[in-house]
Amino acid sequence: MRGLPPEIIQKLRLFLDEDIRSGDLTTDALIPSDARGTGTIYAKSETIIAGIPEIAALAEMMGLEYEAIVEDGEWVKHGDDIIRLSGSAKTLLQIERVCLNIIQRMSGIATKAFHMVQAVKRENPDVRVAATRKTTPGFRYFEKRAVSIGGADTHRYALDDMVLIKNNHIAVIGSAGEAVRVAKSRISFSKKVSCETRCLEETIDAIEAGADIILLDNMSAQQVAEVNRVLLEKGLRERVILETSGGIDEQNIGEYAKSGVDVISSGALTHSYDSADLSMRVEID
Amino acid sequence: MRGLPPEIIQKLRLFLDEDIRSGDLTTDALIPSDARGTGTIYAKSETIIAGIPEIAALAEMMGLEYEAIVEDGEWVKHGDDIIRLSGSAKTLLQIERVCLNIIQRMSGIATKAFHMVQAVKRENPDVRVAATRKTTPGFRYFEKRAVSIGGADTHRYALDDMVLIKNNHIAVIGSAGEAVRVAKSRISFSKKVSCETRCLEETIDAIEAGADIILLDNMSAQQVAEVNRVLLEKGLRERVILETSGGIDEQNIGEYAKSGVDVISSGALTHSYDSADLSMRVEID
Amino acid sequence: MRGLPPEIIQKLRLFLDEDIRSGDLTTDALIPSDARGTGTIYAKSETIIAGIPEIAALAEMMGLEYEAIVEDGEWVKHGDDIIRLSGSAKTLLQIERVCLNIIQRMSGIATKAFHMVQAVKRENPDVRVAATRKTTPGFRYFEKRAVSIGGADTHRYALDDMVLIKNNHIAVIGSAGEAVRVAKSRISFSKKVSCETRCLEETIDAIEAGADIILLDNMSAQQVAEVNRVLLEKGLRERVILETSGGIDEQNIGEYAKSGVDVISSGALTHSYDSADLSMRVEID
Amino acid sequence: MRGLPPEIIQKLRLFLDEDIRSGDLTTDALIPSDARGTGTIYAKSETIIAGIPEIAALAEMMGLEYEAIVEDGEWVKHGDDIIRLSGSAKTLLQIERVCLNIIQRMSGIATKAFHMVQAVKRENPDVRVAATRKTTPGFRYFEKRAVSIGGADTHRYALDDMVLIKNNHIAVIGSAGEAVRVAKSRISFSKKVSCETRCLEETIDAIEAGADIILLDNMSAQQVAEVNRVLLEKGLRERVILETSGGIDEQNIGEYAKSGVDVISSGALTHSYDSADLSMRVEID
Amino acid sequence: MRGLPPEIIQKLRLFLDEDIRSGDLTTDALIPSDARGTGTIYAKSETIIAGIPEIAALAEMMGLEYEAIVEDGEWVKHGDDIIRLSGSAKTLLQIERVCLNIIQRMSGIATKAFHMVQAVKRENPDVRVAATRKTTPGFRYFEKRAVSIGGADTHRYALDDMVLIKNNHIAVIGSAGEAVRVAKSRISFSKKVSCETRCLEETIDAIEAGADIILLDNMSAQQVAEVNRVLLEKGLRERVILETSGGIDEQNIGEYAKSGVDVISSGALTHSYDSADLSMRVEID
Amino acid sequence: MRGLPPEIIQKLRLFLDEDIRSGDLTTDALIPSDARGTGTIYAKSETIIAGIPEIAALAEMMGLEYEAIVEDGEWVKHGDDIIRLSGSAKTLLQIERVCLNIIQRMSGIATKAFHMVQAVKRENPDVRVAATRKTTPGFRYFEKRAVSIGGADTHRYALDDMVLIKNNHIAVIGSAGEAVRVAKSRISFSKKVSCETRCLEETIDAIEAGADIILLDNMSAQQVAEVNRVLLEKGLRERVILETSGGIDEQNIGEYAKSGVDVISSGALTHSYDSADLSMRVEID
Repeated sequence: MRGLPPEIIQKLRLFLDEDIRSGDLTTDALIPSDARGTGTIYAKSETIIAGIPEIAALAEMMGLEYEAIVEDGEWVKHGDDIIRLSGSAKTLLQIERVCLNIIQRMSGIATKAFHMVQAVKRENPDVRVAATRKTTPGFRYFEKRAVSIGGADTHRYALDDMVLIKNNHIAVIGSAGEAVRVAKSRISFSKKVSCETRCLEETIDAIEAGADIILLDNMSAQQVAEVNRVLLEKGLRERVILETSGGIDEQNIGEYAKSGVDVISSGALTHSYDSADLSMRVEID
Repeated sequence: MRGLPPEIIQKLRLFLDEDIRSGDLTTDALIPSDARGTGTIYAKSETIIAGIPEIAALAEMMGLEYEAIVEDGEWVKHGDDIIRLSGSAKTLLQIERVCLNIIQRMSGIATKAFHMVQAVKRENPDVRVAATRKTTPGFRYFEKRAVSIGGADTHRYALDDMVLIKNNHIAVIGSAGEAVRVAKSRISFSKKVSCETRCLEETIDAIEAGADIILLDNMSAQQVAEVNRVLLEKGLRERVILETSGGIDEQNIGEYAKSGVDVISSGALTHSYDSADLSMRVEID
Repeated sequence: MRGLPPEIIQKLRLFLDEDIRSGDLTTDALIPSDARGTGTIYAKSETIIAGIPEIAALAEMMGLEYEAIVEDGEWVKHGDDIIRLSGSAKTLLQIERVCLNIIQRMSGIATKAFHMVQAVKRENPDVRVAATRKTTPGFRYFEKRAVSIGGADTHRYALDDMVLIKNNHIAVIGSAGEAVRVAKSRISFSKKVSCETRCLEETIDAIEAGADIILLDNMSAQQVAEVNRVLLEKGLRERVILETSGGIDEQNIGEYAKSGVDVISSGALTHSYDSADLSMRVEID
Repeated sequence: MRGLPPEIIQKLRLFLDEDIRSGDLTTDALIPSDARGTGTIYAKSETIIAGIPEIAALAEMMGLEYEAIVEDGEWVKHGDDIIRLSGSAKTLLQIERVCLNIIQRMSGIATKAFHMVQAVKRENPDVRVAATRKTTPGFRYFEKRAVSIGGADTHRYALDDMVLIKNNHIAVIGSAGEAVRVAKSRISFSKKVSCETRCLEETIDAIEAGADIILLDNMSAQQVAEVNRVLLEKGLRERVILETSGGIDEQNIGEYAKSGVDVISSGALTHSYDSADLSMRVEID
Repeated sequence: MRGLPPEIIQKLRLFLDEDIRSGDLTTDALIPSDARGTGTIYAKSETIIAGIPEIAALAEMMGLEYEAIVEDGEWVKHGDDIIRLSGSAKTLLQIERVCLNIIQRMSGIATKAFHMVQAVKRENPDVRVAATRKTTPGFRYFEKRAVSIGGADTHRYALDDMVLIKNNHIAVIGSAGEAVRVAKSRISFSKKVSCETRCLEETIDAIEAGADIILLDNMSAQQVAEVNRVLLEKGLRERVILETSGGIDEQNIGEYAKSGVDVISSGALTHSYDSADLSMRVEID
Repeated sequence: MRGLPPEIIQKLRLFLDEDIRSGDLTTDALIPSDARGTGTIYAKSETIIAGIPEIAALAEMMGLEYEAIVEDGEWVKHGDDIIRLSGSAKTLLQIERVCLNIIQRMSGIATKAFHMVQAVKRENPDVRVAATRKTTPGFRYFEKRAVSIGGADTHRYALDDMVLIKNNHIAVIGSAGEAVRVAKSRISFSKKVSCETRCLEETIDAIEAGADIILLDNMSAQQVAEVNRVLLEKGLRERVILETSGGIDEQNIGEYAKSGVDVISSGALTHSYDSADLSMRVEID
């Protein structure tokens, strides 16, 4: 199954159930059971491709052969063939839409991620672009994997992946530093602690308490640069990863890239994206 | 559970599992079990709201109280409160992101659908805008329901909802008319038969064979208007619902609205949309 | 998997779980793991066969070879072999009962459907016999498919398959015509609207409002014929499919077939049927 | 949930999913969300009732109130009310068919079982009637429980409930006695061992090897009586439960009841039965 | 799948999901997709092996080849190889821990069971050692199967496997004898009835009422022997299986073995056991 | 549900299914449906308690009231009451064993963890004791949570929780340092990277490449101390968390605690533990 986790294979099967339900009325009525065919997913515009192992897993699961012409992460241009499925014509027609729905979304995200990463790398090749948890419910794994194929960082998959202290938590505990200390004493040493801070004092407090990551949320690029400068001055900068987020998109991401941060995270990578323009050409023997 | 089907309630639970997994590390470490709080979802820009029953169901499932300030289909503007959840502060923080991920997407789609419907209604109030099966795998129900809240038509939920004969099927059977006839003889009388046609002859052939719907795919508005005109002339027009699709978006949909069709379907409604800008304000007592 | 939808394959596995649970005590205790055998399902009375793909899928799932001697829809007589499974003797003995429970029920229903269809066709070859939603919970797909193999119409699989307006709905809305109009405005153009009516006026009201199907419930064949006659007279008959139901069984179905309706639906097809008399002959090498 | 096992409650939910799927189109279009109603299941013919806890569990699950007018095992006659559900009118209409499909089948089986038990008790009040594993896949629990409500014995729920040695097992091991001995040495002391035998010698062999139950399959009532007589003579009769099965139905069961057996098992109890004639009367406020 | 029930195969998949979740970060980052390897499970101390079919099923499920060097129930000593898996190096590393977690626990239990059985057989070869329902939630099947491989009796898998009347039940009904009688009249003839008794009178009462098994709970070996003696004297002993339990472990089990009982059950077999010391040696080509 | 994640609540339900299956034969036969009772879990020996929220969730799920007398992490001595459940007597008896199986195991692990933590704290209060992934398949969450209640560190829940580079990975990549560098470039910045090393050179190589954690596997306490000393000398010690594991149990853990490491991990915490001696006293009204 090309390395996808078993629970993801299971999810793919449920995606088929959602579309096929009690059967494909049209194909069941019109296509003979023994008809064979070939379906080729091809590009109708330039895009990075993401989702090849998913299509391969769907094909295997349904008893089709497949031949991947490109691999995840490669660019294709209008007219390029991407992956070819062959076998039962009925099966081909039944899984066509699910295959496209997956690969078009994943490729659209990977391409968007790629462009944001490029915008950043032009300014500073060491800065990472990261996604957030603003993903489509039930489809997070695929969106995160697409982000990664586009060259960006997946960030947390779930709430148990890392501690991320936000204002509400700080308010309950009393201070950023104390929140970091309490969190570190209660969670496993195998986990990182990130703390969202709103000003310089809070940032310094959190770093001194041992935060692994500082998240500067909703600051302008100038404010971020200023925090960075002071941390450098105080010798605190190298003790943390500096992340910024909040209203960052392809337009302004370059500015942030110059601010001295390590990571720029953007919800837009997954909450609003275009599907890549791909289609399947089916030939029935 | 506000009328959502039982299997959708189940799906909502799985969305929580995807995000919470083995627990919210941060909240478990920092928020006391007996802390109470209130979370208010509010708008950060103008949008139609869709997803209130979903949020309500999530709240009920997790033992929170809720008060809906607006209902599905209502417009809100920047700053308006939408729905208020109250109860365990830990639970509030744990479900915040899943709630937002659902209501932001559904509201974004409803708003997009609304605008496309308006663009059409300006030209012809009797024409429907419809979605397609180009939905996010696992999230189709919510996307379709949002389309409907925005005033558009959901179209098929799955391959067993209606017969839709495409070129591949016609090629196997021999002609559009024959394909329609075979399909009608093999499927239940409770189902409609739609046939995608590429030219006038095929269209007439399909109608005479008893197609309930003709789908004119990838034609210009002019071509569609011409087909419509001939059908009217031949007295065939009233026997079918005329649908068109292919490359239609907010820009050119008005033109198609004037072509005489009954339904304009657009994949863009669900394959590429922006999440509405909503947020949750949490206050811990 | 011979074209069965993925979620049906999953259901078949759960049927095995129901019977095998933590293991077949007897076979585990007495049959060596490496024993091979052949199991042949054969007929002990005359019947149509339905369920071959289901048995084939169970065999594949459990690692057995199979050879179908007849296909769904063929008649067999006492002593005829139907399908042969071979492989691990333990597996054969473990799945024997589930295989028989499925194919006996499906064949029993297909045969019953065949006889009702014949009774109708003798009077009018254009009239369809249809099943209802009076199926065994959890087993509907298989019962509906059997109905279809017997030559009858499956009717709705679920409440989202078509609109079917009943008296309670009419009472809430005010009139049949208004109920049809409201329903048509709120549901997708891809769905049909059927309306159950109790008298001629209501029938005409519903047709004029655009109902696709009229269901005359619990009327005598004479009453149905009278409605049909008036509709013809008024030029309304060709605008709808006319369906009748209520207390119709093999005895009186012929009468209804002559009444001018298009469809006769009968709950008895699935709520009360005999299993076909089939058995499995197991030979252990 | 009135004592039903948790996994059965889960199954009931899946029965709703099968029928409601993505929603009840008709009710969603026509019934206001705040409409309240009452649904009363009543009898249209004389029958024992079975399935009250199932209906109660469905009602609770969907947020309806219920009032059971009769309990499982009671007789009702034409016109008698059975159980009343009240609450959301939409919910009532959505679950009506699933409720009826369950209670009609369970009541039909319980009534059939009752009649077979009566036919036996007239001849010998100490003889039990038992069901078999010839049940509808996925619905076994409900069919078995109905058998029990009708006064009969459920027999095995699954292959791990008891050892039942059949001819194939005997053929592999060599003799009935040896098969019983091997089985007893390999399975838990908490399980009974039953052995199907074809003649007197085999019967005696199995009893002497320690079988708890002897199943005389496909013998005439006379043959069974003869086996019983010899066992009594030899002082072996009290060491086993004597069961007979094969082609026994309501007509000939009385004869077997006089043959001296302890248990008569009949597949017909569950493989071929009529649903009881029940209906739901819905009143919307 | 080497004879494991289908629902157990499903459980094994869920065990993988628990460990792999969204993927093996380390292996995904460092091991090429096309790397091949071999993993050999070997012993680091002397133990009986249990769990070979489970490992084989996991291997098959994940597309690895396997070669079993020993079979369930065989002894291995330090350094012995047990089973070899080969194929994708990534897959090998991903399933290593789950495989070990299963086979180490099952082998540990089998070995413990073996020693308790030996301690008993030294005193009386006819006495059985049995486990209880004190198993790890979700892992019962595997623990019970290991008990069986070690030579002991699995006892009940679930509450529907046999009637076991305890003091609370007797208190509600009034007497042990009456409880046995009521139970026998209400449950299937295919089930055994065991009754826990606290003194001789209760024991005799239960036997005379027809109990199949008497469970003497929390008695000393002397008390058990005395009960046994009296039952023999009264000619009641051969009518029941005599079981004892309560505070029995490897130290004192020998004493009970001499008391005349048929079965000694011990919760310690599964509630407190050591994992066998096994490891996997992975070689990447 | 006292803060347990939704998927854990689901798991608890499956634990009930495993034990109750088609019903509790004994209780169904003997306890009236309307009998009420109280069940009190109490201690039969000194132990830390872990599992209160789990018992509470099971009670809620099954409609019982509960009153927790102690909370997770508190010590009880012989005779102390722990949690009291009340409601339907049948339900109480049905869930008794599952409740005990969970709380006995969790309390046993918490107590074992407590003792290991104490042994370490006596030598060095800053050193953490951590568990491993050597947990019972399907029961990991509960075992990890128990470890945490006992004062130890849960370590990774799954393979996606942290990068842990082992010898096989190093062998494929070429060196520890290179493996760390490659891993860091490919995984999210939100994740830590741990590297298992076998000697000082490898340790230094990994630290200089940016490892967050060094795992010294299968070294003696002296060897560990020596590595620690050199790292201090070279100014590398504060850049990493130093962890050791391999053959460490309650006997020798004190020695390792003095070696200068930060974390000592021990598989024995979960692969071999005794259940706490708890019981339930049921009183039926």
